[in-house]
Amino acid sequence: MQFHHHGYVSGDPRVSPAAGTGIDRPADLPDEIDVLIVGSGPAGMLLAAQLSQFPDVVTRIIERRDGRLVLGQADGIQPRSVETFQAFGFAGRIIEEAWNLGWMNFWGPDPENPQNIIRTSRTEDYGFKISEFPHMIVNQARVLDYFAEAAAHGPGRITPDYGVEFVGLTVDREQDRPVEVRLRYVAGDRAGQERTIRATYVVGSDGARSPVREAIGRKHIGGISAHAWGVMDVLVNTDFPDWRTKCAINAEAGNILHIPREGGFLSRVYVDLGEVPEDDDHRVRQTPIEEIIRRANAILHPYSLDVKEVAWHSVYEVGHRVTDKFDDVDVEDDHAPHVFLTGDACHTHSAKAGQGMNVSMQDGFNLGWKLGQVVTGLASEELLKTYSAERQPVAQELIDFDREWSSLMARKPEEITDPQELATYYLATAEFPSGFATQYSPSSITAAGAQQDLATGFPLGKRFKSSPVTIVADGNAVHLGHTASADGRWRIYAFADAPAAGEPSKLTDFAEFLASDASPLATYTPAGADLDAVFDVKVVYQQGWEGVDINRVPGVFRPKVGPFQLLNWEKVFSAGPNVWLPTDIYDERGLSRDGVVVVVRPDQYVAHILPLTAHDELNDFFAGVLLPQR
Amino acid sequence: MQFHHHGYVSGDPRVSPAAGTGIDRPADLPDEIDVLIVGSGPAGMLLAAQLSQFPDVVTRIIERRDGRLVLGQADGIQPRSVETFQAFGFAGRIIEEAWNLGWMNFWGPDPENPQNIIRTSRTEDYGFKISEFPHMIVNQARVLDYFAEAAAHGPGRITPDYGVEFVGLTVDREQDRPVEVRLRYVAGDRAGQERTIRATYVVGSDGARSPVREAIGRKHIGGISAHAWGVMDVLVNTDFPDWRTKCAINAEAGNILHIPREGGFLSRVYVDLGEVPEDDDHRVRQTPIEEIIRRANAILHPYSLDVKEVAWHSVYEVGHRVTDKFDDVDVEDDHAPHVFLTGDACHTHSAKAGQGMNVSMQDGFNLGWKLGQVVTGLASEELLKTYSAERQPVAQELIDFDREWSSLMARKPEEITDPQELATYYLATAEFPSGFATQYSPSSITAAGAQQDLATGFPLGKRFKSSPVTIVADGNAVHLGHTASADGRWRIYAFADAPAAGEPSKLTDFAEFLASDASPLATYTPAGADLDAVFDVKVVYQQGWEGVDINRVPGVFRPKVGPFQLLNWEKVFSAGPNVWLPTDIYDERGLSRDGVVVVVRPDQYVAHILPLTAHDELNDFFAGVLLPQR
Repeated sequence: MQFHHHGYVSGDPRVSPAAGTGIDRPADLPDEIDVLIVGSGPAGMLLAAQLSQFPDVVTRIIERRDGRLVLGQADGIQPRSVETFQAFGFAGRIIEEAWNLGWMNFWGPDPENPQNIIRTSRTEDYGFKISEFPHMIVNQARVLDYFAEAAAHGPGRITPDYGVEFVGLTVDREQDRPVEVRLRYVAGDRAGQERTIRATYVVGSDGARSPVREAIGRKHIGGISAHAWGVMDVLVNTDFPDWRTKCAINAEAGNILHIPREGGFLSRVYVDLGEVPEDDDHRVRQTPIEEIIRRANAILHPYSLDVKEVAWHSVYEVGHRVTDKFDDVDVEDDHAPHVFLTGDACHTHSAKAGQGMNVSMQDGFNLGWKLGQVVTGLASEELLKTYSAERQPVAQELIDFDREWSSLMARKPEEITDPQELATYYLATAEFPSGFATQYSPSSITAAGAQQDLATGFPLGKRFKSSPVTIVADGNAVHLGHTASADGRWRIYAFADAPAAGEPSKLTDFAEFLASDASPLATYTPAGADLDAVFDVKVVYQQGWEGVDINRVPGVFRPKVGPFQLLNWEKVFSAGPNVWLPTDIYDERGLSRDGVVVVVRPDQYVAHILPLTAHDELNDFFAGVLLPQR
Repeated sequence: MQFHHHGYVSGDPRVSPAAGTGIDRPADLPDEIDVLIVGSGPAGMLLAAQLSQFPDVVTRIIERRDGRLVLGQADGIQPRSVETFQAFGFAGRIIEEAWNLGWMNFWGPDPENPQNIIRTSRTEDYGFKISEFPHMIVNQARVLDYFAEAAAHGPGRITPDYGVEFVGLTVDREQDRPVEVRLRYVAGDRAGQERTIRATYVVGSDGARSPVREAIGRKHIGGISAHAWGVMDVLVNTDFPDWRTKCAINAEAGNILHIPREGGFLSRVYVDLGEVPEDDDHRVRQTPIEEIIRRANAILHPYSLDVKEVAWHSVYEVGHRVTDKFDDVDVEDDHAPHVFLTGDACHTHSAKAGQGMNVSMQDGFNLGWKLGQVVTGLASEELLKTYSAERQPVAQELIDFDREWSSLMARKPEEITDPQELATYYLATAEFPSGFATQYSPSSITAAGAQQDLATGFPLGKRFKSSPVTIVADGNAVHLGHTASADGRWRIYAFADAPAAGEPSKLTDFAEFLASDASPLATYTPAGADLDAVFDVKVVYQQGWEGVDINRVPGVFRPKVGPFQLLNWEKVFSAGPNVWLPTDIYDERGLSRDGVVVVVRPDQYVAHILPLTAHDELNDFFAGVLLPQR
């Protein structure tokens, strides 16, 4: 965490100084808004946190509810989400209060006594195998609290406008602010009043029944399956020995997916309510909690639950739907979109693979920086077309995965030939539910001409997988990827060739290029801004940290920042190994010892991989994304 | 972190439900107080946080200043302090914003060109060698913020009464509340008003000039040495390559102790101002900042500082003083004390060994639970005598250490025969500055008859050094010591003998004893309180976690807690090793495979070590500390 460079910070360094629209943010919704976010769920709140880092953008987030989410909903957090939380500054805190999902156990009928269940296998969860971050369980309400804090503490000082409902919108591209939005106050003094405002962009993060989706005429394609589940958050006493372990239970009496919750006592239980008759007309949703508990006890036989408290419960029918396009522009149209859909507004599915909240947040992470850079004039509107192009296929993959997983989970015991099959499937597909399978196709922001062989461990279009390095200035080991916060900046990582700092080398030439008038830094950094305002440039040397003479490191890697123009000492790294760090990032991530430049997007996806000598190609890449600032 | 067992917690689980005096805590100081803390420094604020866990105690903390500390003062945090922060729930958060002290470098004159300095050695800091917690740098203001949060979020809801000055006190042991305290409001509407209140106990955490110390007639013994130092927190640009590494610089032009600060830019620089003439009369304290900077530049030659901002600076003369006794009762008197001294009020010394704030906090940790248990009637007043008996010798050791370290640091280059000497001393003495050298002597709360050979890695009288174990219920690895929060409870760790859970064994017999009417749990747990209200009993089995049948674990290790009387699943551990955990706590801490009981005080010090069969001895020990509750 870096601070004090704008002067001494006495209080919580997680609170940034207010800037731009954050300095005097009006309590009331203004008549004119740059970005209006509809809905304060995971995608919407992440967007608000991200846009708080663009304080020159007028961002508002409206929410029908009259306050924060209190209960229920999603709780499964995949490692990619925790990685995202790290970038937003709260991974450590939320991990502390979450429950770590280390194991998944499978139970089935006892062959000798089939009305009893027995444990058929234990499976290590994929969490720590695939990431330095855990797979964990924590309530959506807390995730939203942390994003709300990040939004409120960012320079834009964004807080939700609660008690405001979206009514409808019309788009008129001839207007400066093309979207006219009709709103209604549903809480507080003005409850019942309607109002019309104008926005440049509107994001529908407004859930499965999304009125924004309806307003732009997009269709949610797919259907509800004929299978229903009861779900309950309960405090119980039980003799079921795996009550504090995630379990898939496949009994003669039905199926349970059981997920222990944070805090050591609460559990989330998904109880199979079986096939729903065609003429049911959603009557299954009226299933009383007593019936859900009764079925759970039948499934757990010979064990039983003594339910002391039901904190929350619900019944749902499994649906698999995805919207064909996530914005208001048809593929054949040339103009840029002004309305976007995220999260449940464009993809819904079962809760049981623990994916929904996670994929929704990545929608928001994908879209946020694009809106920020376009509204501030750093990038052209073309950039916004990549949102739907990138995220719609991810949602489609999610639906496919969830359909397969749900049907595996809902099988009857006699349909299961191999008791290890579920466990095997669970582990074999780990990259997907971890959130690391997403790989964006070549586009203006994912370079087709990348030289993957120079950095085999940073797959193009996938998120930048971190490895530890050593800070040259103080000898502390740090995860390179964790130094990149969700501040909307592009990252340029220069991995040096072999010569030492300051010696003639490709790295030295690359640094000279970056410092020249011909570089992307010169072209796209606004006049008067710090040298690292748009591009966060970092260098990693192959030498041990004690072997790097910091005074010979080129100045572009030690930019002067802030009102005092202080040297930033923490952008110069050594690959290791050293006494605190057993690994070398060149080996860990398959980096060329001739050096390599890795360009990473503000949402952490690898955008380009280039040799240190490819100065023109680097310029060409950014010319396709950004607008010259000078 | 455990929560939800009193019902669903929607918000931040770090905020405990208010209880007792915390439910309706008056904004104004009441006329009658159980514990009055004078001063909101590190010792006082820790005390407030600790006593917030005893919500039946009326605790107030007064502070002359009209609000939180903003700037300056201590910044060195030893691993023992971070361990303490963990128990108070904020280690993770403060580590995130602190600077990790991984190395200490030493500089001296270049033999070939003695007016220039050169690096003479690099030394790994002791931090991670000695503890799972770091040695780090963060401002005292933030430490106080976190303790203030712990005090405010604890059940007692304690917040400081700012703008209130201590004037004086008198003790009359005949009164119910023996201490009459005179106070003056120095800020706010009542500024200038005086007031008299009565307290049962008063703690003087009121700094080196402690009016509380004066009021009880204790003497601060020792003197101010003839050496002065200038200290500054500065934002600079410099070519000194070790600006982001802790350095001891011993130049011809004088000495610097240089400590980088949190946030990546700020530094704390201690500049030697040399010997002070006898007739100086503290004029050295008027040394202007310009002179301190000038000297720093002379010492750093050939490097130089371009100081952009001075956040804080001061000049002090090194003093070494310790008070002969830390309470208001002379050794020869039989009655219990009612006034206590902590921190700088009873020990002052140089700042350069980074000890002051750390030792002060341990004063508070030692005293807090004792006051809580005595006021709530759990222990007799006798317990309070152990405070001075335990802490005064620690302060004396600190003064001795600091005197040696200060004189080593203040030497002239020509006095240094071995350039490695400072580095060698620094590492050889690591246990002391880490905060782990403290070992309390046998007393009512440190059993003389402990069987150290049964647990060689838990030295009696030293703090309980944690090792990882596995939670049987969910297979997650966790540090056993980290499961003990600073909640004022005693810990009884039962390390099992070889037989499996539920089999006939010494462990099974011990559990039966604990569950019987003859056990300390029965004798000292108040009627109506949860079984684990006074004693937090945990068991560690030798079997791998998959080999422990949780349903056969004795009930005393799975107590029912809270209003729903829910099973606590997280007190049953396995020693490991397993897939997530390569170590076995029996090997790591030298535990007898025949089993052993380790009793740990609420401030984390090892109080007793017993075989599993020593039921009577366990009772005897607690009979010397606690009062029967039934």
